[in-house]
Amino acid sequence: MSDLIRSWVQGANTPETEFPLNNLPYGVFVAADGAPHCGTAIGDMVLDLYALEEASVLGFAGSLQTGSWNAFMALGPTEWARLRQTLTEMLREGSDTQAVVEPHLIPRAGLGLLMPFDVTEYTDFYAGKHHAMNVGTMFRGSENALPPNWLHIPIGYNGRASSVVVAGTDVIRPYGQLKGPNDDAPRFGPSQRFDIELEMGAIVGQPSTGPISVAEAFENIFGYVLLNDWSARDIQAWEYQPLGPFQAKATATTISPWIVTAAALEPFRTSTPEREKPLLDYLTEPGPMLYDIALEVGLAPEGAAETIISRTNYKEMYYSSAQQLAHHTTSGCPMRVGDLLGSGTISGPTRDSRGSLLELSWGGKEPLTLDTGETRSFIEDGDTLTLRGGAQGDGYRIGFGDCFGTLLPAQLVAGLG
Amino acid sequence: MSDLIRSWVQGANTPETEFPLNNLPYGVFVAADGAPHCGTAIGDMVLDLYALEEASVLGFAGSLQTGSWNAFMALGPTEWARLRQTLTEMLREGSDTQAVVEPHLIPRAGLGLLMPFDVTEYTDFYAGKHHAMNVGTMFRGSENALPPNWLHIPIGYNGRASSVVVAGTDVIRPYGQLKGPNDDAPRFGPSQRFDIELEMGAIVGQPSTGPISVAEAFENIFGYVLLNDWSARDIQAWEYQPLGPFQAKATATTISPWIVTAAALEPFRTSTPEREKPLLDYLTEPGPMLYDIALEVGLAPEGAAETIISRTNYKEMYYSSAQQLAHHTTSGCPMRVGDLLGSGTISGPTRDSRGSLLELSWGGKEPLTLDTGETRSFIEDGDTLTLRGGAQGDGYRIGFGDCFGTLLPAQLVAGLG
Repeated sequence: MSDLIRSWVQGANTPETEFPLNNLPYGVFVAADGAPHCGTAIGDMVLDLYALEEASVLGFAGSLQTGSWNAFMALGPTEWARLRQTLTEMLREGSDTQAVVEPHLIPRAGLGLLMPFDVTEYTDFYAGKHHAMNVGTMFRGSENALPPNWLHIPIGYNGRASSVVVAGTDVIRPYGQLKGPNDDAPRFGPSQRFDIELEMGAIVGQPSTGPISVAEAFENIFGYVLLNDWSARDIQAWEYQPLGPFQAKATATTISPWIVTAAALEPFRTSTPEREKPLLDYLTEPGPMLYDIALEVGLAPEGAAETIISRTNYKEMYYSSAQQLAHHTTSGCPMRVGDLLGSGTISGPTRDSRGSLLELSWGGKEPLTLDTGETRSFIEDGDTLTLRGGAQGDGYRIGFGDCFGTLLPAQLVAGLG
Repeated sequence: MSDLIRSWVQGANTPETEFPLNNLPYGVFVAADGAPHCGTAIGDMVLDLYALEEASVLGFAGSLQTGSWNAFMALGPTEWARLRQTLTEMLREGSDTQAVVEPHLIPRAGLGLLMPFDVTEYTDFYAGKHHAMNVGTMFRGSENALPPNWLHIPIGYNGRASSVVVAGTDVIRPYGQLKGPNDDAPRFGPSQRFDIELEMGAIVGQPSTGPISVAEAFENIFGYVLLNDWSARDIQAWEYQPLGPFQAKATATTISPWIVTAAALEPFRTSTPEREKPLLDYLTEPGPMLYDIALEVGLAPEGAAETIISRTNYKEMYYSSAQQLAHHTTSGCPMRVGDLLGSGTISGPTRDSRGSLLELSWGGKEPLTLDTGETRSFIEDGDTLTLRGGAQGDGYRIGFGDCFGTLLPAQLVAGLG
């Protein structure tokens, strides 16, 4: 563990903040004139990088004078390191550039946060073993819980980039085709089993045009976000054979407002769990490529206090994002700046560490009891779901900002009923 | 059937051309200075719409002064109709603007053609019943050939937009995880069962943010391309359970160089086949929304003559693109300009009308004999596969240009073997 790097910015040196100088996460906020600006969170403030670039203080070819981090990502790892180094020097206690930087700090409280980057394409994986075992046991029994390919392939499917939204965006309960096991025919109606999936998202920061190694994949990942892959379990159950989930996963995927860079997470690297079967060479990791990031899920009914319904850790994953990205390129699939890879649901080994309500309520058979006394099998209208994540350093903590969304009731659509 | 609209442009009035004035398909070509220009094919020529727009002859807010049709599509159906009307008047026999237009005609022969639009997201469907029955029979037996949801849902999955390429782009045989039914463990190697899928692609020309009706979906489709969804059957067999095809479909998808507009196809509208089970209201078509488009597939071994290995028709589909797009939006999935929807493989009822080698060779058990005397179960290195499509009017034919690609051998990747 590295130590806290002390900053002259208010609130940056307390053990409680998610945004010490060691973090420097990248986001996009609404500036005073309404325009989206690239910024970084530090303590209680956000530093306006758009303005600093405009004032020619930074020198990144205008790539920060936008409302998206894609242009900066495209500059590549050398420039990624240079910006982090530059900001660290500027914001460090005793910096001689404080007077230049200070006018561009804005209080973080109440600031509107937007999508930190444009999602080029979105892929979601199924790479948490506890999750795969839980879901497999519910649907196929414990003997056949893991599909035969699961220990060999980081199973993934293409998701829908257009449905990715930033934390704070309301989510509308979806309509879809529903058919219970005893129904004669499907009907069209609102999902009754709407759920979350607690995940991490890895952001591809460099393009590739053919197969790349796990080591190359690791270098191409710019950073990570928290990711909630909202899922309509009843729509999924009826639609997903034989080609996988489609509309069940297309309502929304919420990401945290801040991208925590791979550089900030470097002290928290940890190995994937022991392999139960040897992996093929192309998936073998040359070093630790997962991260020790504590995660939690909060559920707050409308107007009521929040209950933490799950606590787990990113290091529970069987496959790292680097392995997933390397596998993604095997067939020659081109990857582009801004591609987002969902880790798959992150469940731990115990009941209270499961990353979805499907698992927490065991398919609705064992409803959860909230601190308010209410119970939940799946999400109810008005519920706010919040993911939080933090890597714990020595006297400091690296966070992503709350990844939250509120479920609104289904909206009747004329002529579609 | 409407009649031929006669044009003053060379080669536009012969029954053989794919590009009579009734067509006016949209593409992008490499101009003399190397820049990509929007253009339309007419007879033996291409009309440079970039140049016409630059010369202020057209007046579409600069949307044609680009190397992609996305900006023009975003203008909406009124402007789509206005451009078609303007071009028809300019190119019609007896037009009084011939002198203004003629300098911007370029011989089509040898012209480099580029991707006609930027693919925002790519979705592929599985909506041809003969194809689904053939594949289902091979893998699950004729009793269980159709999945239970198939007659109720236009089954689709998200594909990979980054892998869509224009006709003429070489395709490299992919590597992937392979495991035969009798193998103990998977291995990493080149696909041995690389295949085509004969499809049509529908291009979304207007955005939507919530569920839309089939009628609205029909209006939002700008036009159609031929589409070859190259598929690695052996990679797919091992990877696709439980979340669907992934790397098997990510090597490449080839589209025709010309977008044929929905307006040009209007005289060829035809109904989907009779429903075997009633559809839910939201999928019911208010009128004919398929098209009568004759399709064929040619296979030419390296340096040898082509054999036509399949002849079928788009009207064989069970679901139209409008139904697919409407279903795509049910869960609230936002659709954007440039989204591409693959129809699914188009097979007819007879052996010689099947749209994939998997079906034509019945999984490799009944290899095809080519005109050269060679046989094929799947594609061999050096083979060129070409899709062609045409709607037959009274004395004229509407085509898309050849949708072709050559398979190059797998390339060894250092460190990944």
